[in-house]
Formats: sequence, C-alpha cells, structure tokens
Amino acid sequence: MKDDNFLYIMTDEMQTVLQSVLIKNGYKKDTAALLANTFSLNSRDGIYTHGINRFSRFVDYTKNGFVKKDAIPSLTSKSNGIEQWDGNLGPGILNAIAATDQSMKLADEFGIGCVALSNTNHWMRGGTYGWQAAMAGYVFVGFTNTIANMPAHGAKDTKLGNNPLVIAMPYLDTPIVLDMAMSQYSFGSMELSAMKNEELKVYGGYDSEGNLTKDPAAILESRRPLPVGFWKGAGLSLLLDLLAAVLSGGLSTHEMSGRSVEYGLSQVFISINIKNLSNHSSIPALIESIINDYKRSVPENEQTSISYPGERVLNSRKRNDETGIPVLKKIWEEILTLNK
Amino acid sequence: MKDDNFLYIMTDEMQTVLQSVLIKNGYKKDTAALLANTFSLNSRDGIYTHGINRFSRFVDYTKNGFVKKDAIPSLTSKSNGIEQWDGNLGPGILNAIAATDQSMKLADEFGIGCVALSNTNHWMRGGTYGWQAAMAGYVFVGFTNTIANMPAHGAKDTKLGNNPLVIAMPYLDTPIVLDMAMSQYSFGSMELSAMKNEELKVYGGYDSEGNLTKDPAAILESRRPLPVGFWKGAGLSLLLDLLAAVLSGGLSTHEMSGRSVEYGLSQVFISINIKNLSNHSSIPALIESIINDYKRSVPENEQTSISYPGERVLNSRKRNDETGIPVLKKIWEEILTLNK
Repeated sequence: MKDDNFLYIMTDEMQTVLQSVLIKNGYKKDTAALLANTFSLNSRDGIYTHGINRFSRFVDYTKNGFVKKDAIPSLTSKSNGIEQWDGNLGPGILNAIAATDQSMKLADEFGIGCVALSNTNHWMRGGTYGWQAAMAGYVFVGFTNTIANMPAHGAKDTKLGNNPLVIAMPYLDTPIVLDMAMSQYSFGSMELSAMKNEELKVYGGYDSEGNLTKDPAAILESRRPLPVGFWKGAGLSLLLDLLAAVLSGGLSTHEMSGRSVEYGLSQVFISINIKNLSNHSSIPALIESIINDYKRSVPENEQTSISYPGERVLNSRKRNDETGIPVLKKIWEEILTLNK
Repeated sequence: MKDDNFLYIMTDEMQTVLQSVLIKNGYKKDTAALLANTFSLNSRDGIYTHGINRFSRFVDYTKNGFVKKDAIPSLTSKSNGIEQWDGNLGPGILNAIAATDQSMKLADEFGIGCVALSNTNHWMRGGTYGWQAAMAGYVFVGFTNTIANMPAHGAKDTKLGNNPLVIAMPYLDTPIVLDMAMSQYSFGSMELSAMKNEELKVYGGYDSEGNLTKDPAAILESRRPLPVGFWKGAGLSLLLDLLAAVLSGGLSTHEMSGRSVEYGLSQVFISINIKNLSNHSSIPALIESIINDYKRSVPENEQTSISYPGERVLNSRKRNDETGIPVLKKIWEEILTLNK
C-alpha cells in the first residue's frame, strides 16, 4: 500500500541520483559510486534513518569540511593481529568498509583480527559492515562511539553515546546480523513516531518531569532517551566507548561532545576466521538448529511473529525491490535540488 | 548494620571451610584451594548468588558427575590467535581461569587472542575472569551461554539463555568490569526480592497473564523474565549463543536445554594486548577523563549516585572485609554439614 507522503524510488535510480550529487560536490567517480551504493542499499534494506534520510546532512558535512572527501585511512601502529588506523576524517562509510576489509585480512593471517579506527565519521548503518564481513564468511563484532545523547542510569543529563554494536554470523546467503544502539529507540524512530502521533510500544525515555514515558515528543523534548535495560545498557555503552577510545587512541564520547557537530568518532572492527576451525563443516547445520528452535517459540498472540536479528531487513529488501524505496517527498525533493 | 538472618563470615574462614568440603569430596588440595578462593572472593565482592549461595549446588553437581572433579581442558584445534579447547566437563571456574590465561598468552603472541571453550560448566561469576585479565593489563571480552531461561521477544516460552557478557578494561588497581546477564534481573535476585516481599525497581518480566510486572513472585511463577531492552537483549542473547556454540564447536542453549540440569556450556574468552599500542602510555589518563566526565552526570535526585560498572563491587569488598561476608544462616549451616 502506497502512501501519498512518499515517493517510491527504485534502488538503481536512487544510486544514480546520489552519485551525481556527490560528484557535483567534488567526490571522485569511484568514491561517489561506493557511497551512493551504500546509502541506497541501506535504504533498500529499510534503514532509512541511516540511508536516504541522512544523505543531505552527509553532503552538508562534506561542504562544511567535517567530512574530508579525499581522505583515506592511514596505518598508525601495528602489533600482529591488532592495528590502529587513523581515519583522517574521511567519509565514515568508506573508512568503515576499509577497516572491515582490513580486519578480515588480519583474521586470515592471525585467526582473529582487530582494526581500531580513530578520527573517522558516522558509519551510517552499522549492519552494513556486519553484512560485508559475514557475506565473506567471517564472524564479525564491531562498534562505534557517538556524541553524547543518552543519560547514565539515574542521571538527568546526557554523558553517554548510544554507541551501536554490531554482531554478525555468516549463514548461507542471508547472515544473521544484530545491529543495536544502546538506546531503546533511536532519535530517528522517535521523530517518526512523533510525526505520526504514535505512542511507543514500550518506555522509550523520561519526560521533563523525570517520569518514564511512551510519548516520543516528550522524550525528544527532555533529551532523556532510555538506555536498553536501564543500568545495563548504560554500562555497556560506557564500556564500548572506553574500548573504542582506548584501542584506537581516538576521541571518546566525552571529548567529541565538546564539538558543535558529531565528527571524529572512534570505532572497532573485529573479524574471526572460522574456516580453519575443527567444526567448520558442521557450522551451517548448527546455526540452522539454533534458528529453527528459536523460531519454534510460542508467540504470545496470533499477531506476533518471532524474528531473529536481521530477518526483517530481508522483508524490507524484497518489498522495496518490488515497489521502490519509500522516500518522504520533501527529502527526495531536497536531494533533487542538490543535483541541479 | 547486621541482620539476624545472616552470619558474618570472614573471607579466610570461608575459604578454609569451602576448601575442606571440597577435599572431603575428592578434590585435590591445589584444585580445592583455587575453587574455594574463587567462591569466597565472589562472595566478598557481594556476588553471593554466584558465590557462597551456589557452593552446595556445585558440590552436588560434583557428586552427581555433572562436574568432573579431575578433568582439565584439552586443546582441540588451533589457528594462530584462535584456539578451541574442550573443557571435558571439569569445574567451570577452573576451566574459565585456564581459558582466560590462555587467551592472554595468545594476545601476547598475536595482539588479540581468542579461546573458545566447549563442554564446560557454570563459570559462576563472569566478572572473575574480567578482573583476572584486566589486573594483568589486558582488555577482555568474554561470554557464556546458559540453559534456556528467557523468552524471545513476543514469546511465551523460554528459548534463550540469559548468556552473561563480561567486558573489562584495566585501570590502575581497580579495573572497570561490566558483568551483565541478558535478563533485566537474575533469578537469584528476584528470589531475594520475593523473599523480602520487595517490588522490583523496574519491570522484570511478565506475569502469567502476559502483563509486564514488577512483582518478582509473579515472574518466578510465569518463568518469563524480561530481556534487557525487550527485543534488543533477546537479539544480543541469541547472537552470543550463536558465537559461543559456533566458535567452540560445543553445545548451544537449545541443545543444552534438553538436559535435566545445566552442564556442558560453551564460552568465549578474548584478550587484547594493549601494551604495544601507540597510545599505551596515555591510556590511564584517557580512562580517567572518561570516568570523571561520567561521574559528573547530574543525578536525578539527591539520593542517586552515578556509579560505573564494577564500582559497587569495591564498596561490597570494603564492607565485607570489615564486617565479614553476610551468609544466610541456613546456607552456612548446610555447608558446615557438608564439612562433617
């Protein structure tokens, strides 16, 4: 069912337009193609908040010099299976693709490889890199810090990032990919719910009086989103920031938060080579048995479907391939203006 | 303030008694000493549910052969920085200490080291191994699967384990150690709250009618504890189980759950050597700046203190060193009976 507020753009068309905008903004052809492809595929997979909805801001950050369009990452230090790279403030997507690739090369050589990346930019959708590694046959764990946008447990102000964590497991043609930020809801999804006047399904944060609420507008006003599991998600967020900053030698959430906009992030990419494990040949059957058992869960009602992380992405992909990617009219019109 | 339901046992005394019980149950002196030490130190740190409160069950599992008292882990396969070990159903604490140690040796050689352990037993307190690695100067990530004890999001039955995750960061004499299960509350803590007729602070699960509740007794009855952050903690739990089973070649939560009791777990231990990183000398200052900023959070009220993961452990340790470790009378009496 199509919605009048949206245009429906086929993936190829989206990619052509985005690439053209990037070239007009000084990106080289190959670089522009890879960036446009990633923004388009993220959108095709239903991750609009880190796809098409964020593209104009990315162009803006390039214009303002927060993103250095020609920068490529450089090796800072190496100690066998762990390497530190400086992202040199290049485009976050390109730096993250390169870092994932390098972590797989290290995994080939050392069994497990870790690339810690400083001085990079927003990687958009974390799942991109989980898919990249898992489709190549590697187990993958990656995470990024962010600017402060979430309070510590029991706090009123935001000292923590929501620091997305990605874990991916290769499985046939469609890997299992967890891509979770440490806040119960992203600001993007709360903005969408607020726009539609919809209540959140579970508590998403606190209102300005400090009460837990499902009202997205109240949370957007208070700027107090809820960490997943209260003290637990807050703790995990703090540790991911510590790991990202310590391992990369880059900025922590705290240091980044003094900046006017979010740039210069720290990220970690770990790949594990499972091809030489003694049980390698039986891994697909093992995963299938785990997933089949999980899917046999008894749903709490007839409307509930039990899905594993990444499964819904496949539904979005199929639907968007058929009907086109839904893009808010004003967002697409803004992008077309950039292409003039 | 002391409570009449409890005895207050000094750590040394606890260790002496536990070691004696273990020797009476056929453990060799050195093995008994290390186990008794770990159970006692977990209790001293305030983690009673995975310390003294679980000791009798451990002795029972030894008697019944679920835990093989003389078994030691054996190497199954090796591929540079990643190794698979078979725990041979030995005591979970000893296997986990050995696996942590081995992951640090691999980190020395390869920068980052991963030991995947199959066929082991409950490691008791995950934080033990985070402390072990971080006190030796390594960044550590470890996790275990468990028997199924938590529902998938939207499900009525328990297909997931609560699969504790540990992340540790060396920091001066008192590392920062996150030790979190994927359920909002452990069954142990819900049992304690139910016994005291206390309500949980936040929703801990569903009652038998499928409503979210803070009543621990209702959750113990329904067996539907809440994953941290609903679908997010459920997804993370599933991925940790997949990683543990795939990397170790051992049992998944699903396979283990067919057994009458929980044994034969799969675990992963990853250590990272930070001594050779280019920023090594500045790491303590970096961590201090992150922790100091975090602690400057504005508390929501005067009673709230903002603590980082592992910080409260230090308070318990100090208090229990002064006053003795509080042990429920009936638990200590049961242990003394085992020592006759």
